[in-house]
Amino acid sequence: MDRVKKTKIKATPRMSRVTIIDVAEQAGVHWSTVSRALNPAKRHLISPEMIERISACVKRLGYRQNAMASALRTQKTRTIGVIVSNLGDPIHPPIVRAIEDRLGEIGYVVFVGNTDNDSMREAALIDRFISQGVDGLIVATFKLKDPLVDKCLLAGVPTVAVFRDPERPEIPSVRVDDAEAMARAVRHLVELGHRKIAHVGGPQNLSTGRNRYRGFRKACKTAFGADSEVIAKFGKAFTVDEGHSACGELLDQHRAITAIVAGNDMLAIGCLSAINHRGIKCPGDISLIGMNDMLFMDAVYPPLTTMHTPSRELGLQAANLLIDMIDGKKIEKGRHILASNLIIRSSASKPN
Amino acid sequence: MDRVKKTKIKATPRMSRVTIIDVAEQAGVHWSTVSRALNPAKRHLISPEMIERISACVKRLGYRQNAMASALRTQKTRTIGVIVSNLGDPIHPPIVRAIEDRLGEIGYVVFVGNTDNDSMREAALIDRFISQGVDGLIVATFKLKDPLVDKCLLAGVPTVAVFRDPERPEIPSVRVDDAEAMARAVRHLVELGHRKIAHVGGPQNLSTGRNRYRGFRKACKTAFGADSEVIAKFGKAFTVDEGHSACGELLDQHRAITAIVAGNDMLAIGCLSAINHRGIKCPGDISLIGMNDMLFMDAVYPPLTTMHTPSRELGLQAANLLIDMIDGKKIEKGRHILASNLIIRSSASKPN
Repeated sequence: MDRVKKTKIKATPRMSRVTIIDVAEQAGVHWSTVSRALNPAKRHLISPEMIERISACVKRLGYRQNAMASALRTQKTRTIGVIVSNLGDPIHPPIVRAIEDRLGEIGYVVFVGNTDNDSMREAALIDRFISQGVDGLIVATFKLKDPLVDKCLLAGVPTVAVFRDPERPEIPSVRVDDAEAMARAVRHLVELGHRKIAHVGGPQNLSTGRNRYRGFRKACKTAFGADSEVIAKFGKAFTVDEGHSACGELLDQHRAITAIVAGNDMLAIGCLSAINHRGIKCPGDISLIGMNDMLFMDAVYPPLTTMHTPSRELGLQAANLLIDMIDGKKIEKGRHILASNLIIRSSASKPN
Repeated sequence: MDRVKKTKIKATPRMSRVTIIDVAEQAGVHWSTVSRALNPAKRHLISPEMIERISACVKRLGYRQNAMASALRTQKTRTIGVIVSNLGDPIHPPIVRAIEDRLGEIGYVVFVGNTDNDSMREAALIDRFISQGVDGLIVATFKLKDPLVDKCLLAGVPTVAVFRDPERPEIPSVRVDDAEAMARAVRHLVELGHRKIAHVGGPQNLSTGRNRYRGFRKACKTAFGADSEVIAKFGKAFTVDEGHSACGELLDQHRAITAIVAGNDMLAIGCLSAINHRGIKCPGDISLIGMNDMLFMDAVYPPLTTMHTPSRELGLQAANLLIDMIDGKKIEKGRHILASNLIIRSSASKPN
């Protein structure tokens, strides 16, 4: 085994770096002793003198442990894959950042891939990550009842859903209480005196889109009675453009509305642009509440009242769950749900 | 070799998936024939009938190529590492996104790491990426004359600098013409009639910070004479907070200034907050121009006049250069410099 490995290493250019075999030769020991000396979990098996001798050789030769070789020994690559729809959407970078911070602390490196919510790209990316031997996956793109969950389960790769919840009991998910966030936004508008409130929502095949609409509808029924009309338009995606067109239709068809709860801040920015485009005033004529509290929502005009999503906390909790799963610890498989807080700025006021 | 590998594979849980050996046994051929059939570059060496027979076995067994095993054969991991200071800074996600899009097209997966401009974290991350066997690195964090460039060169890993230029001839860099961008901003303000223009710049140990200041200074000297005073304050980082405090000092010490050119949009948003904080009007009392044209700079108040950085193009060009380097093609090692365009919005107007 030792001999085979050595031959292989010498035969190839990338491996012409210093190897564990070179260290072993210098120290005059078997390579497995070097391996033990370098492994914190097994170091106690050998003498302190031997550790010192090997350390000196490691330093002298400038040996760096090779992750590929280590992966073949330990069956862990210390890599994980993170899948988001679009890094350019400001909700995702803080989540990815938190995951990388947490996993970086314990020596993991993080693959990141974008899918634009295209199921084919998602499947291909999961395949590539699995084929790279990732120890786990954190997925922010699962749709409701997403069959791609089966792909991950079948491959036996520990998987955590973050932000969007596929609602599959086999894997844990970390998300905010989307329904309650929208209900809170509606209650704030009702308290301000609004009676005609509409929703500009996102895709209904995503937990985020569906749960936020459900929360909106339920809060309206509670405030205005079970028979009250529920006014909503849905974008095909959570984007500024979709928010602009959905809000445009809404304003053209329902002239009595005095407030809008948007399914997220991207949609809200699109609503603002549609409102401005028509010469309507926000908050004077139409109040607006967003969701997520993305970067710069305090600097837009008018500063956006929105529901704050604790993005960093979502990333950290997802990373911690995944670490426990990789380490074989027992974890709670269900939903891990964090609260959103109302951030009052200037886009929602009393109706005229 | 064949036998050793097989034994190892059978001995470990992760490797208990279907292997190339299983496919070879089913097809009744040597595993190297299967390997050739699956490699587009070598497929022509075997008969179409054999390819068909092997493909059928691959499908029947559900074999997926294992990247680690493939890496040991080809000495390519088809992974690359991307290093940014902070994914939460909106300038970086579009660059990373473009790199992932381009490399994803040809089957690469992308590691991403954040360093907060901490040299220790940068060194550790480069080590981890190299130890993972990345085929190349794209680094957006190099400081001027950064010794970390040597680490990459020494490891023999193809490396491209993006956005920030370490000004080391050994590696290619892709960036915008920072000096000319600032000069263009100054000329726009001069054309509007401003005569007292100040700079709120970034760290001077970064090419971005230094070249933008140089471009600002040169354009002022050209406009107002070689003996004219150059007014500038520098943030310790390109952040909103640093922009706020640097602009605050500036406004307190130089009451005659009528315009500010900020080193980037983050600093500009900080300037806006300092301006508002003092009850000064932008653009009425102070005109402001930013740099980069980050997401939402059209939605802030007042909509920010800024120099547009073609972030996606930077990422694509860096990815293309790296691909050529990995493929052993001859590339131009020098600086690849893209232009910035002035985007006129509402934050800069004629002085009062």
